[in-house]
Amino acid sequence: MELVNVKELFRKESDYIGKEVTIGGWIRSNRDTKTFGFLVVNDGTFFEPLQVVYSDKLHNFSAISKISVGAAVIVTGVVTATPNTKQNFEIQAIGIEVEGDSQIDYPLQKKRHSFEYLRTISHLRPRTNTFQAVFRVRSMIAYAIHKFFQERDFVYVHTPIITGSDCEGAGEMFQVTTMDLNHIPKTEDNKVDFSDDFFNKPTSLTVSGQLNGETFAMAFKNIYTFGPTFRAENSNTTRHAAEFWMIEPEIAFADLKDDMVLAESMLKYVINYVLENAPEEMEFFNQFVDKGLIDRLKHVTSSAFGHVTYTQAIEILEKHNDEFEYKVSWGCDLQTEHERYLTEKEFGRPVFVTDYPKEIKAFYMKLNEDGKTVAAMDCLVPGIGEIIGGSQREDDYDKLVSRMQELDLNIKDYEFYLDLRKYGSARHAGFGLGFERCVMYLTGMGNIRDVIPFPRTVNNCEL
Amino acid sequence: MELVNVKELFRKESDYIGKEVTIGGWIRSNRDTKTFGFLVVNDGTFFEPLQVVYSDKLHNFSAISKISVGAAVIVTGVVTATPNTKQNFEIQAIGIEVEGDSQIDYPLQKKRHSFEYLRTISHLRPRTNTFQAVFRVRSMIAYAIHKFFQERDFVYVHTPIITGSDCEGAGEMFQVTTMDLNHIPKTEDNKVDFSDDFFNKPTSLTVSGQLNGETFAMAFKNIYTFGPTFRAENSNTTRHAAEFWMIEPEIAFADLKDDMVLAESMLKYVINYVLENAPEEMEFFNQFVDKGLIDRLKHVTSSAFGHVTYTQAIEILEKHNDEFEYKVSWGCDLQTEHERYLTEKEFGRPVFVTDYPKEIKAFYMKLNEDGKTVAAMDCLVPGIGEIIGGSQREDDYDKLVSRMQELDLNIKDYEFYLDLRKYGSARHAGFGLGFERCVMYLTGMGNIRDVIPFPRTVNNCEL
Repeated sequence: MELVNVKELFRKESDYIGKEVTIGGWIRSNRDTKTFGFLVVNDGTFFEPLQVVYSDKLHNFSAISKISVGAAVIVTGVVTATPNTKQNFEIQAIGIEVEGDSQIDYPLQKKRHSFEYLRTISHLRPRTNTFQAVFRVRSMIAYAIHKFFQERDFVYVHTPIITGSDCEGAGEMFQVTTMDLNHIPKTEDNKVDFSDDFFNKPTSLTVSGQLNGETFAMAFKNIYTFGPTFRAENSNTTRHAAEFWMIEPEIAFADLKDDMVLAESMLKYVINYVLENAPEEMEFFNQFVDKGLIDRLKHVTSSAFGHVTYTQAIEILEKHNDEFEYKVSWGCDLQTEHERYLTEKEFGRPVFVTDYPKEIKAFYMKLNEDGKTVAAMDCLVPGIGEIIGGSQREDDYDKLVSRMQELDLNIKDYEFYLDLRKYGSARHAGFGLGFERCVMYLTGMGNIRDVIPFPRTVNNCEL
Repeated sequence: MELVNVKELFRKESDYIGKEVTIGGWIRSNRDTKTFGFLVVNDGTFFEPLQVVYSDKLHNFSAISKISVGAAVIVTGVVTATPNTKQNFEIQAIGIEVEGDSQIDYPLQKKRHSFEYLRTISHLRPRTNTFQAVFRVRSMIAYAIHKFFQERDFVYVHTPIITGSDCEGAGEMFQVTTMDLNHIPKTEDNKVDFSDDFFNKPTSLTVSGQLNGETFAMAFKNIYTFGPTFRAENSNTTRHAAEFWMIEPEIAFADLKDDMVLAESMLKYVINYVLENAPEEMEFFNQFVDKGLIDRLKHVTSSAFGHVTYTQAIEILEKHNDEFEYKVSWGCDLQTEHERYLTEKEFGRPVFVTDYPKEIKAFYMKLNEDGKTVAAMDCLVPGIGEIIGGSQREDDYDKLVSRMQELDLNIKDYEFYLDLRKYGSARHAGFGLGFERCVMYLTGMGNIRDVIPFPRTVNNCEL
């Protein structure tokens, strides 16, 4: 079938006025009088629906006038200018075929449904306005990220999903096995015998591709990952999912400053891309989901991000300890309430907090000259808190080994990682961007479950 | 640091001649006389290495002349034209700093290493010529695929990795659990008690995002997935990995013919993109990995793919049964030897085989009018065999249910999928492209382990 996308009609309107086209789509509403009717049709390629006018000259007028919401139709008609109305054109139908009818119990009747309810029908919710907008913008953000890095000659690396190492020491990992759970084989001393398991050892789902990514950065200079990561954390919040996607660039011959420049330009690039390519969706979010969203994002793209050291941040926050549930003092981890205070109240724009105490950061971060803090950075944004976490990596073999020993890590597990410091070590840095947090930030959606097509959270793995 | 990528120097050569630049990279070779020396430096952004000339005017001449292969250096110098040599320019060094030395036991000395050996050092092999080429091209192919679909307004969908359903009935799946394998909780009747598991039920790693993808195609019309998929198959071949990436587009208001048009244009687009953007790498593959590769790929982009029905294909193959290990007859599955015969000997170009017996294809494929075959297609390419498998989907509720009953599938598990046939069903089709097979096809690499950064196969889950 030669179908035209509705997006094409809207974006290249003047090319189509007066022409006959055929489109396929789903009915959002249908109202008729005795001699003519109006279909509102959405084909999923464009946010705004298309109006189709039909009359009793159609041989199947009576069938069409009864067709229900949700049905699939193929419409052939003439694109006709409609000045002085909300939309500049409509389709005057020459023929309408019913491709697939919709049952009377179709759950998405023309009324507002709660996000909670829509989560129970994740296979149908992308047909609603909100989720059309969310998932198209999600797709665009993903592409904008690839585009940003590829235009800068970064190599995209698929780091492994199944891993034999627990390298971030993140603890809460999902195990992966092919053993029969009913009959777990045991060794003589009654431990799990992994010799019959698929990989011949315990394996789990990755929590980060960073360490693998570093090996590629030491070969390609600039690389990025973009893949799923997993946390088996039993936390039921609006910001945590068990399965989420992460972007982890890694740059060699680069320090923490370069890392922040990269993070800032990436965020600005992505925001600009979405504002430019999804104006209808962004307008919708701005109006119905998060008032002020567009102004806020535009403000971000046009202002320089703030910079503050952890130590300075603590000084700022300590003055407001009475406003916080968790009181801060030097050495403590920042909670979301503190992060949001800094970015929303203190700076009013995204801000990088740098140079955290080494005790609250990972072993691989580069020790600063003070011996107490590491060259880490978190990027905080209004409405979300931390959206990016990164650092310069310890590139000195001896310092890295001694830090690992302090933390009782098994050096043998990290030989590949130490090799990078033995053979042509170079200063390097990187960060992780939580993809879903980025989608939330750009759409104003408040619950991570509503920006993931089929979310996985504790006790929830539907479809 | 303001470093210039070596790629930039090569691609915009004339802008840089006579200018001073700083680059960071790793030493591939170093040879010196008493008064000057040559470094070959690769910074990972470009396939061809850069020649750096240094002289005893450098304050650290003697240190530099001893620096070993693999070391990281930062070179500042003047880009100088070198007519009548292989490369058009070199860098005449003003200063060279050692960023990180390399130990004497560096495994990648300047000699040829076997792919088998390099697989044992997957963290270092991307520093070799072959794997620089493989993984840069892999990255470009991934991007070209995104670009192809995004330019056509397809929505990129992240279908879930952890799944509660065994929807393809693919059998060999990896289980995902947070239970203590040493103490699997049991119910009263001595079965595994999943009530304490993270998702409160058995879960595993996805083998395909298709069924989820279809739900989005019925909302967005045209979608694609691009994510990791898993098979716990105990097969030790050069073409199978336990973890691999797959691209699964799904198009609504489209039939098998549209599906093949899409597959063919996608493959041609990707080939053209890589030939255009990685000419040095492709030349390398053509010369050292797979002679004739470039001609073959160019031939593919300029010729129409062949089309043959399964029934016709069997007729062709039966005449050559004496040449095959597995003899063919109507109803049998095609083996790689048959696929390659068809595409290499019979057609000499990629070919679509269509309309397979329903018995050897999945339940969701649309039944043809003959009642015996389904609207399926496999795309076979020379050197590989099947690279794409797709079909038009059964969009008729009753036919789908009756096929599922024939196959004893549990209808209740597929309610979401059947809903798509109840509410605005539309003809639709899609296919799956094995990403790694695509990389093998475009690079000529013969083993799937050599196109995956950190391959996972039976008994192998390193790094």
